[in-house]
Amino acid sequence: MIRIGIIGATGYVGVELIRLLHGHPQVSGIIAGSVSHEAKSLSEIYPNFASVSDLVLGDIDTVLRDSDVIFASVPHGLSEAPARRAFDSGKLFIDLGADFRLEDESMYAAYYHGSFKDPALHSKAVYGLPELNRERLKAARIIANPGCYPTCSSLGLFPALRSGIAGEGSIMIDALSGLSGAGRSLTLDTHFVECDEAVAPYKVTTHRHRPEIAQNLAAMAGRPVPFAFVPHLVPMSRGMLCTSYVPLVRPVGEDVVREIFATFYKDEPFVRVRPAGETVSSRWVRYSNYCDISVHVDAEANTLIVASALDNMVKGAAGQAIQSMNIACGFGEAEGLTQVPPAF
Amino acid sequence: MIRIGIIGATGYVGVELIRLLHGHPQVSGIIAGSVSHEAKSLSEIYPNFASVSDLVLGDIDTVLRDSDVIFASVPHGLSEAPARRAFDSGKLFIDLGADFRLEDESMYAAYYHGSFKDPALHSKAVYGLPELNRERLKAARIIANPGCYPTCSSLGLFPALRSGIAGEGSIMIDALSGLSGAGRSLTLDTHFVECDEAVAPYKVTTHRHRPEIAQNLAAMAGRPVPFAFVPHLVPMSRGMLCTSYVPLVRPVGEDVVREIFATFYKDEPFVRVRPAGETVSSRWVRYSNYCDISVHVDAEANTLIVASALDNMVKGAAGQAIQSMNIACGFGEAEGLTQVPPAF
Amino acid sequence: MIRIGIIGATGYVGVELIRLLHGHPQVSGIIAGSVSHEAKSLSEIYPNFASVSDLVLGDIDTVLRDSDVIFASVPHGLSEAPARRAFDSGKLFIDLGADFRLEDESMYAAYYHGSFKDPALHSKAVYGLPELNRERLKAARIIANPGCYPTCSSLGLFPALRSGIAGEGSIMIDALSGLSGAGRSLTLDTHFVECDEAVAPYKVTTHRHRPEIAQNLAAMAGRPVPFAFVPHLVPMSRGMLCTSYVPLVRPVGEDVVREIFATFYKDEPFVRVRPAGETVSSRWVRYSNYCDISVHVDAEANTLIVASALDNMVKGAAGQAIQSMNIACGFGEAEGLTQVPPAF
Amino acid sequence: MIRIGIIGATGYVGVELIRLLHGHPQVSGIIAGSVSHEAKSLSEIYPNFASVSDLVLGDIDTVLRDSDVIFASVPHGLSEAPARRAFDSGKLFIDLGADFRLEDESMYAAYYHGSFKDPALHSKAVYGLPELNRERLKAARIIANPGCYPTCSSLGLFPALRSGIAGEGSIMIDALSGLSGAGRSLTLDTHFVECDEAVAPYKVTTHRHRPEIAQNLAAMAGRPVPFAFVPHLVPMSRGMLCTSYVPLVRPVGEDVVREIFATFYKDEPFVRVRPAGETVSSRWVRYSNYCDISVHVDAEANTLIVASALDNMVKGAAGQAIQSMNIACGFGEAEGLTQVPPAF
Repeated sequence: MIRIGIIGATGYVGVELIRLLHGHPQVSGIIAGSVSHEAKSLSEIYPNFASVSDLVLGDIDTVLRDSDVIFASVPHGLSEAPARRAFDSGKLFIDLGADFRLEDESMYAAYYHGSFKDPALHSKAVYGLPELNRERLKAARIIANPGCYPTCSSLGLFPALRSGIAGEGSIMIDALSGLSGAGRSLTLDTHFVECDEAVAPYKVTTHRHRPEIAQNLAAMAGRPVPFAFVPHLVPMSRGMLCTSYVPLVRPVGEDVVREIFATFYKDEPFVRVRPAGETVSSRWVRYSNYCDISVHVDAEANTLIVASALDNMVKGAAGQAIQSMNIACGFGEAEGLTQVPPAF
Repeated sequence: MIRIGIIGATGYVGVELIRLLHGHPQVSGIIAGSVSHEAKSLSEIYPNFASVSDLVLGDIDTVLRDSDVIFASVPHGLSEAPARRAFDSGKLFIDLGADFRLEDESMYAAYYHGSFKDPALHSKAVYGLPELNRERLKAARIIANPGCYPTCSSLGLFPALRSGIAGEGSIMIDALSGLSGAGRSLTLDTHFVECDEAVAPYKVTTHRHRPEIAQNLAAMAGRPVPFAFVPHLVPMSRGMLCTSYVPLVRPVGEDVVREIFATFYKDEPFVRVRPAGETVSSRWVRYSNYCDISVHVDAEANTLIVASALDNMVKGAAGQAIQSMNIACGFGEAEGLTQVPPAF
Repeated sequence: MIRIGIIGATGYVGVELIRLLHGHPQVSGIIAGSVSHEAKSLSEIYPNFASVSDLVLGDIDTVLRDSDVIFASVPHGLSEAPARRAFDSGKLFIDLGADFRLEDESMYAAYYHGSFKDPALHSKAVYGLPELNRERLKAARIIANPGCYPTCSSLGLFPALRSGIAGEGSIMIDALSGLSGAGRSLTLDTHFVECDEAVAPYKVTTHRHRPEIAQNLAAMAGRPVPFAFVPHLVPMSRGMLCTSYVPLVRPVGEDVVREIFATFYKDEPFVRVRPAGETVSSRWVRYSNYCDISVHVDAEANTLIVASALDNMVKGAAGQAIQSMNIACGFGEAEGLTQVPPAF
Repeated sequence: MIRIGIIGATGYVGVELIRLLHGHPQVSGIIAGSVSHEAKSLSEIYPNFASVSDLVLGDIDTVLRDSDVIFASVPHGLSEAPARRAFDSGKLFIDLGADFRLEDESMYAAYYHGSFKDPALHSKAVYGLPELNRERLKAARIIANPGCYPTCSSLGLFPALRSGIAGEGSIMIDALSGLSGAGRSLTLDTHFVECDEAVAPYKVTTHRHRPEIAQNLAAMAGRPVPFAFVPHLVPMSRGMLCTSYVPLVRPVGEDVVREIFATFYKDEPFVRVRPAGETVSSRWVRYSNYCDISVHVDAEANTLIVASALDNMVKGAAGQAIQSMNIACGFGEAEGLTQVPPAF
């Protein structure tokens, strides 16, 4: 049994961690820190927790001292210092922000306008995508939890890249996200009246998840993979869908592709490849750690179309972090993540 | 450990039962019947269950034969026959429809245009509102699970009626429901474009839950309670809110009222009376079995305003049925119902 | 032909005024002022206006100087000064905020924590509800445009109060509003994820529209009218619905009530009393200046239930202000307000 | 002044035609036919029209006899017969369904499983996309109004194809639509609870708008254009967005592309090319006939990304049909289409 510490507990990812960890069979307690709400009870801020949790928000020092595993969900640039303290005390540190995701500091500089202040620490970090890095995660002490878009798009593309059916042309990743992905900070773009009943692309060529997707695709393909990526916001709270267009190296039947995908993911507990005739929906994975994938071949355009869906707050954030924790701690990989996705 | 049978498993209440019962510690298996989808696997109809459940839908005979506790979620008029068969075999039968809710057959005739075909059976049925009938539920073999509006409104009004602070004037119950309450059958009123971005009252003086509310209020007050009840549909999938206006018998402070409510519900596992300064929202109870209540006194109008919120599919349907089953089977009352309501 | 000036043009009410006035046959031009966006073009802030309007936002002095009729949509406390300047120049001033709505300064003090700095001016203001004050509006130079809740609830209650069918008991006004009513300022309550898929009451006994409703009901009834008022937010951008519960002085048939309402409003261009068997929906009045009303009698509770619906941004704000302007300027009352409400 | 006849008046496209034509300065009256609602008044079915229109639904014979211009919005296969009758009487017939859109009967057979029963009539039909066929529309007597997806995607791609900056590789068209596009017929996919809070692709390689897009792109490019097309449903009533990925024939700057687009559309009344730094949203065009376009270049992937947005019921259906009517009748092209899109 372990004690969990959470830094940045009152953001959307933080409370999703608390929700999921509350029933985790290996967790004996949760200590949560919040700069903005220190000394308040969690249920004052989020009344859903009334009668469920009597957690009182504390300071970061206490969180770091009294826990065995630390999750941090803070703005980029703020994770290195607590990660160092955790690492030096031999604790597992899982960063749900962007500080440790990119291996190439120049990419971090280009997209986040910052630098690696503690480069030695970065060399210890393991990118926490179990479907890519399960073995390395077993010994990890610092885990960089992936972004939501990189998780959703990468899982949709990995089998095509590894199997070699993807040609060398550019892949197009068209991504749709619910608004929880934008966080709890108030912005005009997330003001109800401004985003209700509307869809729009944003940060068309400049989104910060771009270099992370590039890193993942190259890792799987063993070569740089050219692609374009356009994220969009859609009027719903949760859920993510990536529709990816992959030029095929040669004509290939849809059933063959589906078999490649099914084989690739046959031992994965949280990836579900849909049978022929079915198309994914973000609906079927809400509140769960599943990523659903359907494959479709457009023979006229010689293009493989992959649709992948997940809950941006679970497999796209808190759930995946717990999955990685389970691996690093030697727990069953699905422990605490067996919630049945509701039908609606 | 018990085996659960579900009749009418592919409606919204049916799949919500499956979702909740899937993790119930006292349940060894689920057998589900569906007239419309017999022999299909559940995950074909609701892909959220893929990898979660390999349930195949069967016929009613098998459900009745191979289970220990039977839940029925079928249109009114169709529960008496299977209830009789279950009762005669000594099994617990929980009806989530309307057949056994009303004690007065003339009310059933007036609102449902039917009759009690097996009156002896009706005399055995216990109305499954634990906060009203916990003791009787312990020995129940046929349980009539309450409607969503009667549950939400009654829980909001019980302490005011029992304590005597409610005057003899009419109570006004203004109720808002998400669209899952209307079920999965296709209607123009539940067609997305017809109900999106709109609110409207419906069945203003004729809703079938009216006599059931009357029965509950009279049972608690020990006298007939005059009231008006107006349900409305709001554009969301889940959730229910009742705002009830109660004429006060005499001026009384809000804190006094809150204390009356808190005391009344102090041992209830699923009713949360909100502290001073807080107002309920349907948001905080979604996907959980909680009913949240806040009380407010309008001194100028000498009126108590009670706001009560619940998830119409959980405390308003499937969750409450499981709560009653737990009581009738001698399980812990909250077993299988400890899901943390998500913050969003 | 008149020139329109708008102070506070970039709030939701401001842009709704521009949308409606753009096609007004008596308007030769619009001059718009905005403190926060001075010198920007309107279409930079609201791209819907691209190709439609080349309006550039100016300062208040210019607006006041170069226009014939001035609309102000600014926070309370900021309208008296420009109203005085407009009045002294003989211009018509229509305030869409709260500064001139309340006749009783003590009520203003109690609810808005302010005072009448220019009491002489207040004595000139006419409350701009045409169905109540049409005659007085013809000569008005300062018009206080009503709040959305007072308009919707008052129109639903006026015929019952004037005809004497309403008893002396308290009326209950249960009100539902879309989120545009909360304005464009960023708040947690209007952050998409916080209000999506949820309904909740707010400011249960303290909402600032309460004294304004009291003033209207008393004006129509010729006596103080006791009532409670509970506003709620529902997840939609536009629209308002009030369900009001009126104790009847004696039993009266629904058809009789409907006839009273139909007669009361028979010459009103923007009030539609629905025929027997129909219930209003906020859907049918969106983007239009209509207020729809349906009446229902609950004989058991001896209660009249009135449902009234309007678009909170049109009849509840900008449209009603234009209707009053038309009256005060001697135009046709419906000029510029003949948009057909869309079916969806 | 002309009299309008509408066949299929009570579907979503039909009532949108009525809404828009109601204020058309060249229209003296509307006659509407409906098989399902004959002899009912329009406002019984759509109460938004109460007090606005006293239209009573009639039969098709009357519509054809008493009108000068006929719009048909009926399921495919049902337009040829009335089109023939209209044509033989010398009347303008505008079909908003699919019967006359495809020039190649084999494509019609493949996607609609039907045949051209009156081939002579097809040779008279003009495809009603003014930006492609304005000159031919001037003399048209039968107009095939385009589908929503073909309009939105084609307008986004035309300048790239005509200018030659598009390479020969496959174009990817990722399209998002609100649910009104699915019509008023009841289906599980458009049941509120089934589509709320979810996004999903559908008919991934089989959508019936595919051959129509192919026809348009080939017409503009002067060669067959390979492409894939994936439509998605998003939880909103109105609006459409296409994000199209175009391989560039050579590196080209974003400003150059924007200038190409702006020049191409400089005389178009209803296409708005957004300035640098701006991205389209379906929000800004709702209830209007505009199509907004923004262009973005991903230099790394050597890909042009075009985002185009329109209201699927206006420029994607009823509005475009009126625009074509205006051209064919010699009216001002924007008459009756000058509604200001609301900001929300």
